[in-house]
Amino acid sequence: MAPLVSDGLTLEMVRDFLIGQEDTIIFCLLQRAKHPLNKNAYDKSFPAIPGRSGSFADIMIRDAESLYAKFGRYENPEEHPFFPECLPGSCVTGASFPKIFHPAAASINVNPAVWNAYFDQLLPLIAEPGDDGNYATTVACDLACLQALSKRIHYGKYVAEVKFRNETDKYEPAIRSRDREALMNLLTFKKVEEMVKRRVEKKAMTFGQEVTLDDSKERRKIDPGVVSRMYDEWVMPLTKEVEVEYLLLRLD
Amino acid sequence: MAPLVSDGLTLEMVRDFLIGQEDTIIFCLLQRAKHPLNKNAYDKSFPAIPGRSGSFADIMIRDAESLYAKFGRYENPEEHPFFPECLPGSCVTGASFPKIFHPAAASINVNPAVWNAYFDQLLPLIAEPGDDGNYATTVACDLACLQALSKRIHYGKYVAEVKFRNETDKYEPAIRSRDREALMNLLTFKKVEEMVKRRVEKKAMTFGQEVTLDDSKERRKIDPGVVSRMYDEWVMPLTKEVEVEYLLLRLD
Repeated sequence: MAPLVSDGLTLEMVRDFLIGQEDTIIFCLLQRAKHPLNKNAYDKSFPAIPGRSGSFADIMIRDAESLYAKFGRYENPEEHPFFPECLPGSCVTGASFPKIFHPAAASINVNPAVWNAYFDQLLPLIAEPGDDGNYATTVACDLACLQALSKRIHYGKYVAEVKFRNETDKYEPAIRSRDREALMNLLTFKKVEEMVKRRVEKKAMTFGQEVTLDDSKERRKIDPGVVSRMYDEWVMPLTKEVEVEYLLLRLD
Repeated sequence: MAPLVSDGLTLEMVRDFLIGQEDTIIFCLLQRAKHPLNKNAYDKSFPAIPGRSGSFADIMIRDAESLYAKFGRYENPEEHPFFPECLPGSCVTGASFPKIFHPAAASINVNPAVWNAYFDQLLPLIAEPGDDGNYATTVACDLACLQALSKRIHYGKYVAEVKFRNETDKYEPAIRSRDREALMNLLTFKKVEEMVKRRVEKKAMTFGQEVTLDDSKERRKIDPGVVSRMYDEWVMPLTKEVEVEYLLLRLD
């Protein structure tokens, strides 16, 4: 992926990012699927770390995000933390990222919905029951999945910005009248969504196959239909939710 | 991957792990290849974090390993830190892992060689020149690559243990006479190594392709030949080095 080094934002760049991010999401899910469910890691009543409250996953992800914050990860407007309330500032000097968004866009963070969809709906469909005791490694995989999904979904800000710039006249009336439904309709392209669903299913088949030298095996490591459903039921809807929220702030 | 929940170690389990880990390594390399080289992140003379010495990558990986240690990652004998000298103890109670190795095996850690091969040889071959400023995300990808490679290479301990158990008579004389060359010969199967090289190349082609609905694109995200060379020149040699070191301790 070429970085957005200057604000030469184009629809093609946004599209390329979204397509590339499909691979990242599927690679992360395949890694997580190597471990069993390890449900104690998500159980708030299971004593994980003495003196700290929350599940093992809550605590470890909070600490990992503090580390990332210190190293400047969230200075990049493409990244959104899951526990933004108590992150330390960045210790890194240097890197600055182009200002593409309307300043109010920073307030949009749908990660609570990403978190719930991932842990409550998706995870039980990709991880086998069981416990291998490798909670730290497993939760590191969870965080990689969450970050990949969150990045895709919050890229809705770029999608909305580029669409708004290309067709300002079309979006402005619906923004001024705060008509969410009209905005959602303007942002919805059923044929494109069907294509995305078919493509991620094909990718999950391709990347999840057991590659051997004699082409004999066909076992899939995750069900490709689950990836397609995930895109249909919450990745694309949440992305559009971000787009609508962004547009509603765009003229402020 | 089924966990080694009891010591029912078999050659097949070890082989399955090694094959599955090929996918993990390639997924991690593909993720790293999405970012440009970002060479300042590895430059010890580039001021990364005020008040701390080392490159951005040195400091961040050291801190990330401290976090992982706290959450018990290195209690699992399959995991080896890159900065073992000053890790905090695990805060996690509970998880215990089966004792499969000879106790002295814990002292074997070839991560310095893994680190050098990754940063000096491999990284320049998979990352395009350039700088996108996303050092925290890039180094997180580096750490994932390092951990995946390290896990594969240190799995040599299991390989050696299972081979020793299956053919103790064959290995014992070479161990007693501390004959490294004889051990290396006993552990080397040229035909198997050639097959591994061809398989990882095929995997890199399969997982690195640009999957589209109409099968039109053929662009590869990393050069499959690089993955095959990496296995040939240092993944398999370092794995065998771990095997030899392990066997030399096996009768102590």
